[in-house]
Amino acid sequence: MKRRTFLKSAAMTTAGAAGGAVALSSPAISQNKRQWRMVTTWPKNLPGLGTGAQYFADQVTKCSGGRLTVQLAAAGEIVPAFESIDAVKSGTVEMGHGCPYYWKGKAAAAEFVSNFPFGLTAQEYNAWYHFGGGDKLCDELYNDAFGCKFLPCGNTGVQHPGWSRKEVNTLADFQGLKIRMPGLGGEVMKRLGATVVNLPGGEVPTALAAGTIDWAEWNNPYGEASMGFWRHAKYYYSTGWHEPGTVLELFVNKKQWDGLEPDLKAIVEQCAYAANVVMLSEFQARSGPVLEQFVKSHGVIIKRLSDEQLIKIAETSATVLSEITAKDPMSKKVFDSMNKFRSEQKGYSDVAEADYLRARSLNYKWPS
Amino acid sequence: MKRRTFLKSAAMTTAGAAGGAVALSSPAISQNKRQWRMVTTWPKNLPGLGTGAQYFADQVTKCSGGRLTVQLAAAGEIVPAFESIDAVKSGTVEMGHGCPYYWKGKAAAAEFVSNFPFGLTAQEYNAWYHFGGGDKLCDELYNDAFGCKFLPCGNTGVQHPGWSRKEVNTLADFQGLKIRMPGLGGEVMKRLGATVVNLPGGEVPTALAAGTIDWAEWNNPYGEASMGFWRHAKYYYSTGWHEPGTVLELFVNKKQWDGLEPDLKAIVEQCAYAANVVMLSEFQARSGPVLEQFVKSHGVIIKRLSDEQLIKIAETSATVLSEITAKDPMSKKVFDSMNKFRSEQKGYSDVAEADYLRARSLNYKWPS
Repeated sequence: MKRRTFLKSAAMTTAGAAGGAVALSSPAISQNKRQWRMVTTWPKNLPGLGTGAQYFADQVTKCSGGRLTVQLAAAGEIVPAFESIDAVKSGTVEMGHGCPYYWKGKAAAAEFVSNFPFGLTAQEYNAWYHFGGGDKLCDELYNDAFGCKFLPCGNTGVQHPGWSRKEVNTLADFQGLKIRMPGLGGEVMKRLGATVVNLPGGEVPTALAAGTIDWAEWNNPYGEASMGFWRHAKYYYSTGWHEPGTVLELFVNKKQWDGLEPDLKAIVEQCAYAANVVMLSEFQARSGPVLEQFVKSHGVIIKRLSDEQLIKIAETSATVLSEITAKDPMSKKVFDSMNKFRSEQKGYSDVAEADYLRARSLNYKWPS
Repeated sequence: MKRRTFLKSAAMTTAGAAGGAVALSSPAISQNKRQWRMVTTWPKNLPGLGTGAQYFADQVTKCSGGRLTVQLAAAGEIVPAFESIDAVKSGTVEMGHGCPYYWKGKAAAAEFVSNFPFGLTAQEYNAWYHFGGGDKLCDELYNDAFGCKFLPCGNTGVQHPGWSRKEVNTLADFQGLKIRMPGLGGEVMKRLGATVVNLPGGEVPTALAAGTIDWAEWNNPYGEASMGFWRHAKYYYSTGWHEPGTVLELFVNKKQWDGLEPDLKAIVEQCAYAANVVMLSEFQARSGPVLEQFVKSHGVIIKRLSDEQLIKIAETSATVLSEITAKDPMSKKVFDSMNKFRSEQKGYSDVAEADYLRARSLNYKWPS
């Protein structure tokens, strides 16, 4: 013990003597090894979301050489999922991983940080965050509302609006349809005459099996694989107008964030950005084969919403968005920023991403 | 000096005593502060590519607290752009930033690491790299051919096939068209009857102005803004069949890579993945407004290649790809892996990304 104490104090003196040598000042001192806890809104290792959060935690620990150890706590381990942001705000834990729209009851604008119906693709969202002023706006909201630093840390990509027991071809077919779709999407469907049913995730497959609901929304093929919706609903609808690219978030207690050395701050940021692309990559990579399996092995029929339906859904979305943003200045501020960016990107994405995917899908001979 | 030597040796002993304490073992020792040089194939701060490479270099320096300082050298500063990989292979410098297809003369398969005509989108490429076996394959090629570790470190997104002085509506219009398009794209166009002209980048605007070429390919609106192609060619063609999502690369001398402490390795990896998303974000964010300006301020006409043209281009691409992969086993291995992944993702991307972008572009009222 004595020997250790001596060496430690020697290291501390070195740190003092070296002055500007940031890297030197902390790692040698065991008190300065930070052990942080990260609460998540996901079950442990939930495919895509839970595994992505774990990837982020592990990479911060690795990059910092153990100077900042991030221990992941699954939903319910320390606090229930939907109290995660309070636990970080109060300092019970240092950080959390979730989805911004979970906090709309505490700050309406958080819903818009997630994205919005007919909003941005994942790639456009990242562009908005890094080069469209998104970083500052998100920080402003999270600082004021939650005492947190915000970082994007994952994206689901374009989601699917859902699985239906009934074929839905016209606007009239939405009338009385019992739909499980949370958030803004559900609000829009309600205005179109659907009966929107709120159900916790775990009850959805049973409700669909029993016909208590006709339609269930979840996220994307990979995320839905384990839910077995295909057993009860044959029609799988495209496309994710309601959530075109939902961001996942890292939120860090602001005091803890401000107290981090600059190199640790940079590590947390870079690891969050890296987790962003890795998580979206997992959803994309796994969703392709899963979707193929739905169709080929389980007889699922992929259906597209009709243009008539989509146009009405878009205009109803516009009404809902305008009503919400009229009531809350910060919601308006976030929406206006993303919506301006959307209008600047729409034409470009149409000739770049959309035209390309259309061209690739033409009928031609290709090596297998 | 004496005092410093003592303290240093004390710190080293501590490291030994502490065993697993990785973070402790190196930063305290000034000799272990690595100063690396990164050659790039771009001019200093070239919008998008040069600025992205600089972002990566700065983030590694920041995250490592100066333990690994990365100094960027623009093309020509230490070696000419196209000798970058030799400089890293030989150990003259530790790392480089470029584009895989630059090295196809040294290893044919490198061309496929970039992507291929009618291949993957940026999002699909990342998914292939992280979850489709791409990481191992790229490492295998770069290790064997260049003595390097490979990491994806940026993406241009979907490129544009080019600017044309002439309207090109049918296949026949390609006959004799003088096109500047390098790589596989150029090879395909040659087979379709075009006269493919090889020109260094700097000479392209003048050649287009003089009519020495009818058509010039570059990359995307943001990358093309400073080239002023719109002054000489009115028709801007969509869509980037030839380069649907070209990856930018980091290559690290293998011995230097192997000698890095685990935390520094993790930092370089995470910063490369982060730079990947940040660079693509910059191209996306800036291309939107630039494209709008081309059309509204400069009278540029956006044209789409016809389906007839696209189908013929796709089938010619298939022939070219099959010929090349038949000659080189490693090219075949990389192509087969990416092409299998492409076939798994195509259906999913069609109902997710493509359907969404199509739906968003329908005609409906939307808040401005």
